[in-house]
Amino acid sequence: MRTSIATVCISGTLEQKMLACAKAGFDGIEIFEQDLTVSAMSPEEVRALADRLGLTLDLFQPFRDFEGVDGATLAASLARAEAKFKLMNRLGIDTILLCSNVGTATINDDELFATQIRALAELAAAHGVKIAYEALAWGKYVNTYLHSWKIVELVDHPNVGLCLDSFHILSRGDDPAGIADIPAEKIFFVQLADAPVLSMDVLSWSRHYRVFPGEGGFELDKFMGHLVRSGYDGIVSLEIFNDVFRQSNVERTAVDGMRSLIWLQDRAIAHLGDGAADYPLGIAALPGAQAPSGFDYAEIRTEDPEAVAGMLAQLGFTFRGQHRRKPVTLWSAGDARIIINTQRSRGITAEVSGFGIQVPDAALGTRRATALKAPAVPRHHTVDEQPLHGFTAPDATEVFFGTTSAEPAWAPEFGNGSKPADTSLVTGIDHINLAQPWQAFDESVLFYTSALNLQARPGTEVPSPMGLVRSQVLRTADGAVRLALNIVPHGLENTTDRAPGYPEHIAVHTDDIVTLARHAVGAGMEFLAVPNNYYEDLAARFGLDEATLGQLQELNLLYDRDEHGEFLHFYTETVGTMFLEVVERRGGYDGYGAPNAPVRLAAQFERNRLTTH
Amino acid sequence: MRTSIATVCISGTLEQKMLACAKAGFDGIEIFEQDLTVSAMSPEEVRALADRLGLTLDLFQPFRDFEGVDGATLAASLARAEAKFKLMNRLGIDTILLCSNVGTATINDDELFATQIRALAELAAAHGVKIAYEALAWGKYVNTYLHSWKIVELVDHPNVGLCLDSFHILSRGDDPAGIADIPAEKIFFVQLADAPVLSMDVLSWSRHYRVFPGEGGFELDKFMGHLVRSGYDGIVSLEIFNDVFRQSNVERTAVDGMRSLIWLQDRAIAHLGDGAADYPLGIAALPGAQAPSGFDYAEIRTEDPEAVAGMLAQLGFTFRGQHRRKPVTLWSAGDARIIINTQRSRGITAEVSGFGIQVPDAALGTRRATALKAPAVPRHHTVDEQPLHGFTAPDATEVFFGTTSAEPAWAPEFGNGSKPADTSLVTGIDHINLAQPWQAFDESVLFYTSALNLQARPGTEVPSPMGLVRSQVLRTADGAVRLALNIVPHGLENTTDRAPGYPEHIAVHTDDIVTLARHAVGAGMEFLAVPNNYYEDLAARFGLDEATLGQLQELNLLYDRDEHGEFLHFYTETVGTMFLEVVERRGGYDGYGAPNAPVRLAAQFERNRLTTH
Repeated sequence: MRTSIATVCISGTLEQKMLACAKAGFDGIEIFEQDLTVSAMSPEEVRALADRLGLTLDLFQPFRDFEGVDGATLAASLARAEAKFKLMNRLGIDTILLCSNVGTATINDDELFATQIRALAELAAAHGVKIAYEALAWGKYVNTYLHSWKIVELVDHPNVGLCLDSFHILSRGDDPAGIADIPAEKIFFVQLADAPVLSMDVLSWSRHYRVFPGEGGFELDKFMGHLVRSGYDGIVSLEIFNDVFRQSNVERTAVDGMRSLIWLQDRAIAHLGDGAADYPLGIAALPGAQAPSGFDYAEIRTEDPEAVAGMLAQLGFTFRGQHRRKPVTLWSAGDARIIINTQRSRGITAEVSGFGIQVPDAALGTRRATALKAPAVPRHHTVDEQPLHGFTAPDATEVFFGTTSAEPAWAPEFGNGSKPADTSLVTGIDHINLAQPWQAFDESVLFYTSALNLQARPGTEVPSPMGLVRSQVLRTADGAVRLALNIVPHGLENTTDRAPGYPEHIAVHTDDIVTLARHAVGAGMEFLAVPNNYYEDLAARFGLDEATLGQLQELNLLYDRDEHGEFLHFYTETVGTMFLEVVERRGGYDGYGAPNAPVRLAAQFERNRLTTH
Repeated sequence: MRTSIATVCISGTLEQKMLACAKAGFDGIEIFEQDLTVSAMSPEEVRALADRLGLTLDLFQPFRDFEGVDGATLAASLARAEAKFKLMNRLGIDTILLCSNVGTATINDDELFATQIRALAELAAAHGVKIAYEALAWGKYVNTYLHSWKIVELVDHPNVGLCLDSFHILSRGDDPAGIADIPAEKIFFVQLADAPVLSMDVLSWSRHYRVFPGEGGFELDKFMGHLVRSGYDGIVSLEIFNDVFRQSNVERTAVDGMRSLIWLQDRAIAHLGDGAADYPLGIAALPGAQAPSGFDYAEIRTEDPEAVAGMLAQLGFTFRGQHRRKPVTLWSAGDARIIINTQRSRGITAEVSGFGIQVPDAALGTRRATALKAPAVPRHHTVDEQPLHGFTAPDATEVFFGTTSAEPAWAPEFGNGSKPADTSLVTGIDHINLAQPWQAFDESVLFYTSALNLQARPGTEVPSPMGLVRSQVLRTADGAVRLALNIVPHGLENTTDRAPGYPEHIAVHTDDIVTLARHAVGAGMEFLAVPNNYYEDLAARFGLDEATLGQLQELNLLYDRDEHGEFLHFYTETVGTMFLEVVERRGGYDGYGAPNAPVRLAAQFERNRLTTH
């Protein structure tokens, strides 16, 4: 299938949009009429620019409020339509989107709709234009794709077919299975949009909250399956109205969109299974997805490693050595490996700068990520003795694939340190928490889930003294890799979107947090102080005995419990924009202590206030 | 009535919240439990701080998911409640908010609800605590105030009364008239919240979109009327869950909230009319609202007045003179007066810095604004020979009251310029468009509507190359004063909230825009260039004849039409962050050419791109 995107999805002038879409790899674009109207480029210039860029101009849209009207209104609409058909001829666009009437229709009569659309079709045919009729979910009389298909059948004109839009179908909860029964040659255009599952009026939902496929809650793989079974092999185009995308970097958003289409086509192939070969997909599946087996390492960038190194030592990490060529050191405890990197660290007190994940075949993972337009890390800085490639995530985190093994192949490059301890209280990396610039959140969800083969869990919101923190966990089913993404409250972010100013952290797990905490305190570690009020509330909520409560409070441990088990954790002080967390999971507890997050955020806010004012 | 506010409304630590609430003038606060739990202050410290600040601690909240449960759950809840009652004793709070059960209730039985709440009441009574029972709009079984009142009657215990929350009642569309029939002594607490009229699930609406009274769409004056008629004279408290307020400046938000309560009490008095004297309101009406009769002036601040002065001259403004003492000049054309101010202008190319409005009694207007906590302009800089006072609006605009007159009393202070022309094509100021920092929008709506007695019209959104621009008009019924507030897309704002970087403008009106435009062009003025595509679309939409269209295009005039009349307008080039607009209203056209705003925004974006890259 050929890929396209509506110009309304992204920011900038029409010229900037076209350049960005071509650069991102789209085959064509839909011209959203207003983008042309406000453009200084003439239709001929737009056509010539598209030619030069190798973009097809696939659709002119929208034409609204046509059918079901009185005669005078119809005549005015036909005059308006003819002007647009002439404009389309100058642009070289052969298909126009006709939305079902939401405003001016006064007569509810399918035969009349068909008669009036047939009149439009005759006019269109005279100008070589085809009409793709779309049922808007909030259309006055026509608001389901089956109804619009009935009208198209009644019109019975070679220049009239359907436009199918996944949002208008799935937002209503309509069953898309019927798409498979529509003759493919009568499907003139397909628009794809995902959306988070929200309970609001469908018009607002559609106009502000659409996201690229894979970033929301719709089952678009199934939708694509029905489409493919119809025999359709035309254009699949993104039409995403999203307030954030419209004000974000145009090139980056275009790549985000292209990634979503690549991902979705792969998902559709997977959904079709063995049957995929029967259909004219014209696309290749992505290099295979692999289940990550764990974190290869986490990386901290700092211009002065002393504070971070001290914290790691206090938690029982062993200094494993300096990289033989680079100013990079490796620390390990159990299966947790943490790299301290002083490259490109000027002005950076400390930050979580990257991580590696282990997969069975690192080269395959790289091919898949590349196919998903993961942007390469400009320099190869961590493991250059190994033929691996890294990618920069939308939040600027650097991600590398490593091969599944207890001791990574690159570990020997760190030569001059101590042997790893035989036993360690820290057993591995539990999760990594990454701050997201507000405009990168949806993009990051798609990036990490598609490139790293993680599943997105439902999002949540955590109160903090500086506002609600939106949070979402991406993870493997077995919990071997867990990423928690936090969107940064506006007042806390830095001015660039490359350096979220909100603390990020690396959480390691242990089977004995009490002993570990005592050792760390003994080694001089200062934990984030937990207020007394918290422990009083804990007692009221969980009925803990005094000894347990006293131990928690003595060690500044936080506690949570659910029907599966218990969770104990503590936080270190923050260095720069990073800190460490230690967690112990007892029983089947599978969460992250979300009820305690406000305590942590408030304590960090208070601490920061006391140290900076 | 006494005023209070829930700590959850605002940002910061509990200590910061308390300081801000006291400074804003609240009588007391509701302690939102989580704010205490995460606080480093002990309950005793909180109590002592409240004492010192003169704040009463009015409510401890919330206690959730209590009634309608099995015996074991009830026992656990009672144990939890007792811990909280003891905590309340330490805080010195005598009332707890009990929300109707949304989660754990399994038995739908009013008698059981009453029996279980009575058990809680006995326990509460033993600790000197009263229970205010509130029906949440999404309560599992109890979700209307009439139902919660029925339960309270069934409980029939002196320590159990009602909490009424305007959001939970009005969001459901329930009729609040029944409040007047509830015995006032059984209304233990009243929470007030407004909200924009949205169509979404009520839980999300409640948790994220509440606003202070006067900033949304609820008829809170009527709500207050019913409350007053019940004989209630207790506390009215703000409980506003708003994502923006939670991340905004705590002191400013607290003042915004206090202003809303002052405004609402005044509205309630107005709603009660002559009957107000019969009720124990215990509050005074605000100094009377006056209908503004027009703009006194608009002010532009610039470090180099040449460019602005040139534009004014090109539009036919007369230089009226230099202020006798200050580096401020006055220009006029018809009833439009524009002041160019070079004070405090370092680094400011040009910006819309303030305006004056005329009212019958300027001193009365000032008293009203002061009572509404309008922050005084730190220096008296424009009209100091006249005993007027100015206020800084939340968007940093400086606003002054003047007395209604064709020639303001302060005009003679500008002595050495030309006489005003006998006739002028510009006839007056039509509207002023002000850019709003994202976190000031709701606050600005309340400030301008309450302090200047303007009415808010429904908001709209305008597409621009950098995202959707939220826009709302505040105006007098007769259109004599019109303010258009635009919220700045995120990517365009400056880093401080005091200096929105988005262009603002002053629009003047004329009865002959064609002649005025020709004169301006003849005088060398460059208009914002309008793309050819716009005129082609105009022809298709309105069927204008070629001569009219040609004239519009030649002069870069924009055009709109509705059922009431026509609108022609043009824009000057931008200087700094301001530009001028000239409008002609023909017939009864009462809008602002909203369909043309995207053309303007795109042209400005393009122009800016060409000049800055």
